[in-house]
Amino acid sequence: MGPLLAAPAVGTLLIVKNYTGDRLNFGLAREQARAEGIPVEMVVVGDDSAFTVLKKAGRRGLCGTVLIHKVAGALAEAGVGLEEITNRVSVVAKAMGTLGVSLSSCSVPGSRPTFELSADEVELGLGIHGEAGVLRIKMATADEIVAHMLNHMTDSSNVSHVPVQSGSSVVLMVNNLGGLSYLELGIIADAAVRFLEGRGVKIARALVGTFMSALEMPGVSLTLLLVDEPLLKLIDAETTAAAWPNVAKVSVTGRKRSRAAPAEPPEAPDATAAGGATSKQMVRVLERVCTTLLGLEDQLNALDRAAGDGDCGTTHSRAARAIQGWLKESPPPASPAQLLSKLSLLLLEKMGGSSGALYGLFLTAAAQPLKAKTDLAAWSAAMDAGLEAMQKYGKAAPGDRTMLDSLWAAGQELQAWKSPGANLLPVLTKAVKNAEAAAEATKNMEAGAGRASYISSARLDQPDPGAVAAAAILRAILEVLQSQGA
Amino acid sequence: MGPLLAAPAVGTLLIVKNYTGDRLNFGLAREQARAEGIPVEMVVVGDDSAFTVLKKAGRRGLCGTVLIHKVAGALAEAGVGLEEITNRVSVVAKAMGTLGVSLSSCSVPGSRPTFELSADEVELGLGIHGEAGVLRIKMATADEIVAHMLNHMTDSSNVSHVPVQSGSSVVLMVNNLGGLSYLELGIIADAAVRFLEGRGVKIARALVGTFMSALEMPGVSLTLLLVDEPLLKLIDAETTAAAWPNVAKVSVTGRKRSRAAPAEPPEAPDATAAGGATSKQMVRVLERVCTTLLGLEDQLNALDRAAGDGDCGTTHSRAARAIQGWLKESPPPASPAQLLSKLSLLLLEKMGGSSGALYGLFLTAAAQPLKAKTDLAAWSAAMDAGLEAMQKYGKAAPGDRTMLDSLWAAGQELQAWKSPGANLLPVLTKAVKNAEAAAEATKNMEAGAGRASYISSARLDQPDPGAVAAAAILRAILEVLQSQGA
Repeated sequence: MGPLLAAPAVGTLLIVKNYTGDRLNFGLAREQARAEGIPVEMVVVGDDSAFTVLKKAGRRGLCGTVLIHKVAGALAEAGVGLEEITNRVSVVAKAMGTLGVSLSSCSVPGSRPTFELSADEVELGLGIHGEAGVLRIKMATADEIVAHMLNHMTDSSNVSHVPVQSGSSVVLMVNNLGGLSYLELGIIADAAVRFLEGRGVKIARALVGTFMSALEMPGVSLTLLLVDEPLLKLIDAETTAAAWPNVAKVSVTGRKRSRAAPAEPPEAPDATAAGGATSKQMVRVLERVCTTLLGLEDQLNALDRAAGDGDCGTTHSRAARAIQGWLKESPPPASPAQLLSKLSLLLLEKMGGSSGALYGLFLTAAAQPLKAKTDLAAWSAAMDAGLEAMQKYGKAAPGDRTMLDSLWAAGQELQAWKSPGANLLPVLTKAVKNAEAAAEATKNMEAGAGRASYISSARLDQPDPGAVAAAAILRAILEVLQSQGA
Repeated sequence: MGPLLAAPAVGTLLIVKNYTGDRLNFGLAREQARAEGIPVEMVVVGDDSAFTVLKKAGRRGLCGTVLIHKVAGALAEAGVGLEEITNRVSVVAKAMGTLGVSLSSCSVPGSRPTFELSADEVELGLGIHGEAGVLRIKMATADEIVAHMLNHMTDSSNVSHVPVQSGSSVVLMVNNLGGLSYLELGIIADAAVRFLEGRGVKIARALVGTFMSALEMPGVSLTLLLVDEPLLKLIDAETTAAAWPNVAKVSVTGRKRSRAAPAEPPEAPDATAAGGATSKQMVRVLERVCTTLLGLEDQLNALDRAAGDGDCGTTHSRAARAIQGWLKESPPPASPAQLLSKLSLLLLEKMGGSSGALYGLFLTAAAQPLKAKTDLAAWSAAMDAGLEAMQKYGKAAPGDRTMLDSLWAAGQELQAWKSPGANLLPVLTKAVKNAEAAAEATKNMEAGAGRASYISSARLDQPDPGAVAAAAILRAILEVLQSQGA
């Protein structure tokens, strides 16, 4: 009695789920308390909508009981008296229904399952103590099962149905019976919302979570409660109950919901594309880079087999073919900044993996300094920006045995382009040689990042394929510019 | 870009869990957005405390990332600028650690498990994508596993430890990795709270739930975040995020927590017990009831085998022996109201099952009218009160083939006690005969309540054992009163 007398309560409300043992024992407790002069009322909740014909025992108490707790709590908080609370929640308890579905029974420690289902069956209308349900149906899609459940719950020939009609406003509870993932729960909730809205039912609130579970039961129950504005205010009332969800106090129906956006229409050919001399030179550079990478496919794969998963050549060839295809479709943008940005998106999409993301990062960052100027100093700054982004997000540093080693070595030489009167070809020639030396030097390096970092250094006696590829790309660029006498 | 430009945002913060692919791709997205002039900052969260020696890739992003979302959101809501938010959450991200433990890998649809564990092993320090952990230990109690985890997370020789010490104030997150029941989660949370408090750590808040899960992974992660008051205010800030738990804004440590209360000391012998004439008569009545029920054990069990689970005689014998034991210990209370109340508690505890609860209810309710008076009218009112309570909570009505049938029939006759000048024995004699006839008549009734209601009526051709027992009890009472010439 201690707890009851400790609080200056005006009374106690017993919220009892309708099971014989619960009714009897809570009833007894109530009679004993009343015999001592303690005001105790009792409401018995039976929200089960499974049984189409009622036994004397009545409807079982299921997840809807939680809503009665919430409403009673909100009324008590508002200072409503015990008797009125009892009367009001008794009315609410009659305006709801619950139906469960599960892929198997719950697991009661030390007990065997109360029923067995084959893998392609689901049990409908089961209880929360492992009781078998009223119907066994064949496995179907979430949409089909939810439709089956909601039809059963709202069918007026079912004595325990909820009288939900078009125009009705409801609180929907989607309750994890214990063993569902949030992903599955969300799929069910989405299906239930769509089904009900399709029937013209307004979903005022949707509560999705674990409210009343049976141990590890891989199932879900749906509860519908008919609501008007005053009742909704009680559902929405602030509470300190830790398990009550943080539900937005706005109607689900009518709220803007995001769905996967339709794919954007393909872009129109770039208006800035030009057939000028610069563009032609760029096309020749890109073509040479592509043929170079395709020629290196086997060699890069072989190098990669020793340190990674052997697909470095394949990945670079995929990039090369993507660029070739792109060049065939339309001339590339004339502006270097735009060209690098486009290439970035292309590699990200077509090359894939970490290499695609790293080249994409490099090109996106490198494009920025080229927006304002395209002189040699700007190209050196572009190389710096690309290297910085690559290190920042990729976490590799020079010396880590990655593609960064070649590019970094080249970048050091390209600093010379920032001096007044710098020459393109002599500096680039030195940069390429530096890059090739750096690529070769990776064979003595321990892998500090990338996939090869999982391999013991003793097994690494070949240069890093990413570094070799990067150096080869720089060499290809140099060769075209040399042949053009740039 | 639509969503970014649609809102009048002052900027965007990317909160990225530290995995190479995430860093690269979100980094790329950031660079592309910045290239378009959109202010985007990025914080990379690595809260994994599993690895005692760090690889270059750094600590993985785990459940602690959710706390960064919360803090960043609260700062943004408070109008703090993008750059300051980035700086502040970067500091917070360094003040935490997370460690996971699981009984198996997660289930990625279409893929095989990434690692296999034998039934007596648990994997420590695993990732959220099914990555294997750093340590495999033998199955142990929740307390032992939690101690192992928290020791690992706070061990200063572990480079990724959280510097939690005695006197530290922390937010504790207990995160369901996907496949745990709330029961298990609560056990782990309790163990973690006790362990930390045992080390003198103050748990400012405990967040228990599913915050970052891997599909169906039967495991849990613990996160510790060092907090001061300003940070705690941000954790507590109101949010509309539906998944954020409704956490009480008070410290866990220092809060009064209820534990199972120690059993109450046995009551001292009842001061009202008396050896008077009434008490002696009551003892004789009870003794006769007991011997009667013990004598009926086999017959009642046989009747019950046809309709229920065959233990009706055993249940009533258990009650009889309990009453006999109780009478041996001390004389019963002299007041009928107190006697019935005591009997009620005794049967509830010792008889058990629905019968114990029903008799308990009957006696508790019957005791009330006997508090003020103990004349024949009061005894009739007591019978009425008992019958009403039995029907109200038990949901059986006369004619439902239960013990109520006998008692109800007797109660009808006992109404005569309410008339002036009514006689005890003639009325009681008629009442007992009526009860016996009603018990016999149950053999033609369909079961409307109780366990027998699950049996088809065609199989029921014997009287209800509960009704037979109730009539026999009334007969035993009558016989004692007759022999005393009451």
